[in-house]
Amino acid sequence: MQNFLPVLKEAPLNTLTQSQWQRTVWWEEDAQGAIVCLLDQSVLPLQMSVLRLRHEHEVAEAITSLRVRGAPAIGVTAAFGMALAAHRLWHEQGAESPLESAYRSLMQVEALLRATRPTAVNLFWALERMLACLHTAQEERVVETLPQLAHLLTQEALRIAEEDERSCEAMGRLGADLLQDGDSVLTHCNAGSLATAGIGTALAPFYIAHQQGKRLHVFVDETRPVLQGARLTAWELQRAGIPLTLITDNMAGYFMRQGKIKAVFVGADRVAANGDVANKIGTYSVAVLAHVHHIPFYVVAPCSTIDLALETGEQIPIEQRKPEEVTCIRGERIAPLDVPVANPAFDVTPHTYVTAIITDRGIARASYSTSLRQLLAPDA
Amino acid sequence: MQNFLPVLKEAPLNTLTQSQWQRTVWWEEDAQGAIVCLLDQSVLPLQMSVLRLRHEHEVAEAITSLRVRGAPAIGVTAAFGMALAAHRLWHEQGAESPLESAYRSLMQVEALLRATRPTAVNLFWALERMLACLHTAQEERVVETLPQLAHLLTQEALRIAEEDERSCEAMGRLGADLLQDGDSVLTHCNAGSLATAGIGTALAPFYIAHQQGKRLHVFVDETRPVLQGARLTAWELQRAGIPLTLITDNMAGYFMRQGKIKAVFVGADRVAANGDVANKIGTYSVAVLAHVHHIPFYVVAPCSTIDLALETGEQIPIEQRKPEEVTCIRGERIAPLDVPVANPAFDVTPHTYVTAIITDRGIARASYSTSLRQLLAPDA
Repeated sequence: MQNFLPVLKEAPLNTLTQSQWQRTVWWEEDAQGAIVCLLDQSVLPLQMSVLRLRHEHEVAEAITSLRVRGAPAIGVTAAFGMALAAHRLWHEQGAESPLESAYRSLMQVEALLRATRPTAVNLFWALERMLACLHTAQEERVVETLPQLAHLLTQEALRIAEEDERSCEAMGRLGADLLQDGDSVLTHCNAGSLATAGIGTALAPFYIAHQQGKRLHVFVDETRPVLQGARLTAWELQRAGIPLTLITDNMAGYFMRQGKIKAVFVGADRVAANGDVANKIGTYSVAVLAHVHHIPFYVVAPCSTIDLALETGEQIPIEQRKPEEVTCIRGERIAPLDVPVANPAFDVTPHTYVTAIITDRGIARASYSTSLRQLLAPDA
Repeated sequence: MQNFLPVLKEAPLNTLTQSQWQRTVWWEEDAQGAIVCLLDQSVLPLQMSVLRLRHEHEVAEAITSLRVRGAPAIGVTAAFGMALAAHRLWHEQGAESPLESAYRSLMQVEALLRATRPTAVNLFWALERMLACLHTAQEERVVETLPQLAHLLTQEALRIAEEDERSCEAMGRLGADLLQDGDSVLTHCNAGSLATAGIGTALAPFYIAHQQGKRLHVFVDETRPVLQGARLTAWELQRAGIPLTLITDNMAGYFMRQGKIKAVFVGADRVAANGDVANKIGTYSVAVLAHVHHIPFYVVAPCSTIDLALETGEQIPIEQRKPEEVTCIRGERIAPLDVPVANPAFDVTPHTYVTAIITDRGIARASYSTSLRQLLAPDA
């Protein structure tokens, strides 16, 4: 695990250095070109395997196969994928290759990456930023060579990663203020450092509160079918020294009823203008249970996850994934052959169940139609 | 799968003959003594393996290890275990062996079987019946030899199995009346033929309605950690030709919100006098979700599951099982080493979330304190 070039110049939280190497996605360059590096999350926690990708098709495959997942991390990875493609074109076609052909190729790369997953809006948001960068380069002729274009896109992708890291810390600080010493909380799926370029979204408040000396206990839903809670959240909290209890998804209500859960923190893949939240399947059930037990239900997400173009969550496309995620676990079959399966990867939690949305620009509360627009206003 | 001696003389539902061999627990005798036969549910659906047990310790192990599970099936198995022990003593010690020594040994067998699992009351109920039979034999001297005692206990155990089979059909007929042609329903865990000596508790209404020509669609919660839904319910519904969709536990809310679930049917491991219901972990969450979505939540359980000695569900002991059920699936580790885990095997659903309790003697509705007592009254 040596030789990791950090995406960022400085660690944002010096006391968290022991977990610095839990980097999810980062950028490297060598004599052969550029490399998008990913910690392969599909094999965690049993294997620590780093993928070194040199082609945008590998990046697309990594997103589709959940080797990298988590809305902000997908956005950062896709941005790196665009920059990677520019470097690849440069190294394959030469520094003198005409820019117009590169622009056309990069538009195809954008379409390839855009098609990897439908629900998390950060993917589209990051690609839009890369496209805008590309269009500016093309229309305002700010670059004259393919290497210059590759450098420009790399800088923009690194900026997206850097902003994500800063936004994680901002959300963490806001969220930590909602936590008391001794609190016991619940999280679903993984919205931690593995889901972002920083310290996470839903887990960021836990890391900051822990750093502030507040004692926490985190109940971790295992999050079937892909087990992001059991495989990823348990792993990263354990490494950070935050006490946790791993439970199956269907135990959340049991512990809520016992009064053992004081708050729920989850991430988001897309937030509609009215505050409806798309997040990992099972989030809706947790939100309903929290509501019935009078437990605050917090969504933690950067502003890049908010999609004002969608009025309500009903309009958010829900990815349907392959049945084998349900019928097989680590290659072992757990259900009869040919059994019909449903596998929606996400659900939508109506805003009425959301106590607050903690963003990098502040905490939004109902009415979300107003508060989210205010947070996203250019002068906010 | 030949040579299965049926527990019962007649199949209760002739049209279900293709699934008759899905027998869960049955009794055999040969020249060497008696045998308790179990379909090993811990390896279903990948293996069809029949356990032929000749010692009460094997029966106890089978219950503890979930080779047989489901409240009524556990009761029947324990009753067979008592009879088995009597046969074993006879064959080991001879037909002339003194009865007093056998009575003492059988009291120890009863204690062994009683200690296997704490939550399902049918286990204790069935053992009480066997104890009563034993006491009658002892006090009223209705038997004179060990073979006669073994025969008496065998008859009582077969009677318990036979009654269970009849009660399944009674519950099925009552429950089927609550189902409409075209209904889509949800069940949690396995409360089917694998959980009883008959056609099940919660699944019995589906089998009867299906037989009546009503078209049903069953959403099957996989039921982590032991996956009774994915492994057992999906298997038995598939074999019976009832359309189903297997889902992870955390998808139930998603489909309820989509209006795809018209009713929930679950079994029970113990029902308190006030109608609180202990059942497989996750049942409580399903009940809360059903309540919020205005979906009827039906508990289907024979009267042997009702424990009037307990005023409320708070008093029902909840079995805590080993962490490996959560951290490993089919021997494959899915969580970091040494991660703390909670694994309550059951939860308690308060009676306020229960639309009705469908028993073999009729349907109880609120107020359960009155209705359950009426159902259990000797003259009911």
